[in-house]
Amino acid sequence: MKTMSMKIDLNCDLGEDFGRWRIPLDHEIMSQITSANIACGFHAGDPGIMRMTVRRALSSGVHVGAHPGHPDLAGFGRRVLEVSPEEARDYVVYQVGALMAFARAEGGRVMHVKPHGALYNQAAKDKGLANAIAKAVAEIDRELILVAPSNSEMYRAGIEAGLKTASEVFADRAYSPDGTLVPRSRPGAVILDRDKAVRQAIQMVIDGTVTATDGTVVTVTAHTLCIHGDGPDPLSYAREIRAALERVGVEVAPMGEWLGSV
Amino acid sequence: MKTMSMKIDLNCDLGEDFGRWRIPLDHEIMSQITSANIACGFHAGDPGIMRMTVRRALSSGVHVGAHPGHPDLAGFGRRVLEVSPEEARDYVVYQVGALMAFARAEGGRVMHVKPHGALYNQAAKDKGLANAIAKAVAEIDRELILVAPSNSEMYRAGIEAGLKTASEVFADRAYSPDGTLVPRSRPGAVILDRDKAVRQAIQMVIDGTVTATDGTVVTVTAHTLCIHGDGPDPLSYAREIRAALERVGVEVAPMGEWLGSV
Amino acid sequence: MKTMSMKIDLNCDLGEDFGRWRIPLDHEIMSQITSANIACGFHAGDPGIMRMTVRRALSSGVHVGAHPGHPDLAGFGRRVLEVSPEEARDYVVYQVGALMAFARAEGGRVMHVKPHGALYNQAAKDKGLANAIAKAVAEIDRELILVAPSNSEMYRAGIEAGLKTASEVFADRAYSPDGTLVPRSRPGAVILDRDKAVRQAIQMVIDGTVTATDGTVVTVTAHTLCIHGDGPDPLSYAREIRAALERVGVEVAPMGEWLGSV
Amino acid sequence: MKTMSMKIDLNCDLGEDFGRWRIPLDHEIMSQITSANIACGFHAGDPGIMRMTVRRALSSGVHVGAHPGHPDLAGFGRRVLEVSPEEARDYVVYQVGALMAFARAEGGRVMHVKPHGALYNQAAKDKGLANAIAKAVAEIDRELILVAPSNSEMYRAGIEAGLKTASEVFADRAYSPDGTLVPRSRPGAVILDRDKAVRQAIQMVIDGTVTATDGTVVTVTAHTLCIHGDGPDPLSYAREIRAALERVGVEVAPMGEWLGSV
Repeated sequence: MKTMSMKIDLNCDLGEDFGRWRIPLDHEIMSQITSANIACGFHAGDPGIMRMTVRRALSSGVHVGAHPGHPDLAGFGRRVLEVSPEEARDYVVYQVGALMAFARAEGGRVMHVKPHGALYNQAAKDKGLANAIAKAVAEIDRELILVAPSNSEMYRAGIEAGLKTASEVFADRAYSPDGTLVPRSRPGAVILDRDKAVRQAIQMVIDGTVTATDGTVVTVTAHTLCIHGDGPDPLSYAREIRAALERVGVEVAPMGEWLGSV
Repeated sequence: MKTMSMKIDLNCDLGEDFGRWRIPLDHEIMSQITSANIACGFHAGDPGIMRMTVRRALSSGVHVGAHPGHPDLAGFGRRVLEVSPEEARDYVVYQVGALMAFARAEGGRVMHVKPHGALYNQAAKDKGLANAIAKAVAEIDRELILVAPSNSEMYRAGIEAGLKTASEVFADRAYSPDGTLVPRSRPGAVILDRDKAVRQAIQMVIDGTVTATDGTVVTVTAHTLCIHGDGPDPLSYAREIRAALERVGVEVAPMGEWLGSV
Repeated sequence: MKTMSMKIDLNCDLGEDFGRWRIPLDHEIMSQITSANIACGFHAGDPGIMRMTVRRALSSGVHVGAHPGHPDLAGFGRRVLEVSPEEARDYVVYQVGALMAFARAEGGRVMHVKPHGALYNQAAKDKGLANAIAKAVAEIDRELILVAPSNSEMYRAGIEAGLKTASEVFADRAYSPDGTLVPRSRPGAVILDRDKAVRQAIQMVIDGTVTATDGTVVTVTAHTLCIHGDGPDPLSYAREIRAALERVGVEVAPMGEWLGSV
Repeated sequence: MKTMSMKIDLNCDLGEDFGRWRIPLDHEIMSQITSANIACGFHAGDPGIMRMTVRRALSSGVHVGAHPGHPDLAGFGRRVLEVSPEEARDYVVYQVGALMAFARAEGGRVMHVKPHGALYNQAAKDKGLANAIAKAVAEIDRELILVAPSNSEMYRAGIEAGLKTASEVFADRAYSPDGTLVPRSRPGAVILDRDKAVRQAIQMVIDGTVTATDGTVVTVTAHTLCIHGDGPDPLSYAREIRAALERVGVEVAPMGEWLGSV
């Protein structure tokens, strides 16, 4: 058992409305999570929604993070877009900067950056994009935490850039033997069995491992655990995960309060 | 003769390219101006262009300012869009924040905010929009200068909000007897005679007045003078204006160095 | 009692989703209306949604119409945008053409054009915009019906252009003494009393009149009646209006089947 | 020598301005080409520019074609975007429909469809996208010509869908031994030597072959030859190519006049 992993952050994507459109979401989710990844207007969100979401997070004691994505509203930032490293870097700088201004306007600050959707997945595997995103974060504010998948190029890039880098794990997603996520397009990629997800969460946080699809046990680092806001009943899912973690002695607290640089 | 007006800032809109498209502009203009209003992606500009423009300005010793506009690429932000005060405020916060991140990434800082096009003209006359924009600037950073037309609602709003507020004048635009600009749609709104423009510049800066279209002499406050980058031969225009002002003893210097709060 | 008005079309805005976002709407509304105004991608809708909405309308026997709006996704096309007549004309041509291709692909055709939101309201009062929109429709296909508010500049423009022009009325909106709609910003603009709305519908269709806010009875022409999809319980509202009209002997049928040129 | 290839179409991308921005291009190019691929607003072009470009083409006797691209103004449609076949199909239907309305408004008609940039390159290799695009064209109008690279999946898809399908060749691009274009990212992909390009054009049209980078001679089908509007001095390039082809007896004529279904 790793002492270091006895704290965990719970993060969730928020502010994914746009204009007149709403993504149905119970704002009560704020009571369960510790960090909010707030859409910054490229794949979802708009200035008014960003401000309101920042305000809600701050008033709930939830840490505010930027969730920059591809400039693809129509595809919700989930479609691969072959951006250059320079484009990825500048897209991240732009979006994080915009959110920082709202955080400041509302009396708070941005604590972390978690790239969204296809950008997150592309940078997990592409060293050039990963370094570009780490560079963007470093350029803006070296105190910002970069959130990246466990065992990914982006995680390595964050560490190499000397950033506070949070390794993210997923309780409701299957893992490959190399410690990376099974792509959503594959059968069994999403773990629908709630109990199994809860057990995986505990294993990841307490043991620092996950049992891959082929049965091998691989190492993961669990600084923050993703609560999918678009899954079935995310609020009860968040409550179960959180309660189960607390039951086994894990402290659920914002990573911004305890994550240091390596 | 007003002693206070013996300094003048020269500002110009820059970074108005988008994607693959370029607005023809001689970057040598950087050598003549003191403050750059940099488009922030809503009416023109994109993240890559914003970075490059910030870099060019900083390396030329030109002060960096944000030039937020309506979300209307197709109309270049020049079409009236009836935004609410809250929308205007949040559009300004978003865009200024984005530019601030690039300024920080490039080792500089944003010194001023000058709304663009229709947003500038609407806020010049609409007290609600004017206050909303002043509020946005105050929320982000009370050290930022708000640039507004002389004798406008936006100028008053900036002063009332306790902001450093720069009064902007135009050498190549005709003025109405109430001290506001003659709308571009009217004949004679643009002063094409270069000598006349130069004389108007000197009168505005030295005397603090302008001769309106009906011959009355009205008061203007000249903290910063706009060099239109899209006029005929803007570089030579800037050189003439600057040289003429210096000849009569006016010091051309970035307003960020000398403009205080009222 | 006007014999000519004993037929009425019931129209509703549809296809107003975008990307991943949905506007909650019971598709059963298709069973009550006769004409669908389908968003064309500028203020709402996207290519995939346009196709699906066209398909649903055709399979329900509902006539397909184009619902072109301002290029303002963030504002849902409801914000005044000062477009030139040429811009308005070309925006309409573009959007109607796009929808025509989907109608053709799905084995149907576009029967009418009803401008959306702010574009509709601006063209109701602005003769230049009204003529530009009528011109756009005439250029594309002279068989298309232009839908315009009763007593509006746009209605007159359609008639003058020799188009089949449908005069639209609203059962749940208050009217001014000049026969135009009371703007939504005014108190009492929306009639929330369902019975009153039903009575107004019958009066408009049977008598060709409406009782304005000051009690005067003014003439309206009722070719098509708007069912707001975003009101409270639009399906039951549509059912009540339709049943009430049928009870008094009005035939509810697509205007595309019976509306001729004047 | 193939008799069938003694006619050739010369096509060029046009209408690639957007809003206030212009791509520098000598409109005199209209005198040398026979088919124009007109941007449809997704990667470039806007409604006003589409109308003007259609008008210019028609008045020059140049055939009008649609040039649909990815919804990526910022990337000019040149970045790979992983769209689904259904998305690609609907994007093409939408854009072609929009241009058809302008063609009709200006008294002409759309003769061909040539996908743009990354969409063109992706569909050249991806059978799913290729079939989706062929389906889109067939749904809209079976008389439309689909333009696809020689030896591509998209060319095969067009033929299989029973469409008039034009095989496109490039005089100024190097070919791989499998008859496909060398990607632009590779050295030597673009043939800068004007004489070599002219010789390659003649070989492709007269012999129906091209000499690949490794010296092997591979078959190509040359129905239409692309004139890059963004190369160095495209007008003189078009003149040289056209004159050289005419000198050896090739008739330069719009494919819309002579290309039949297979």
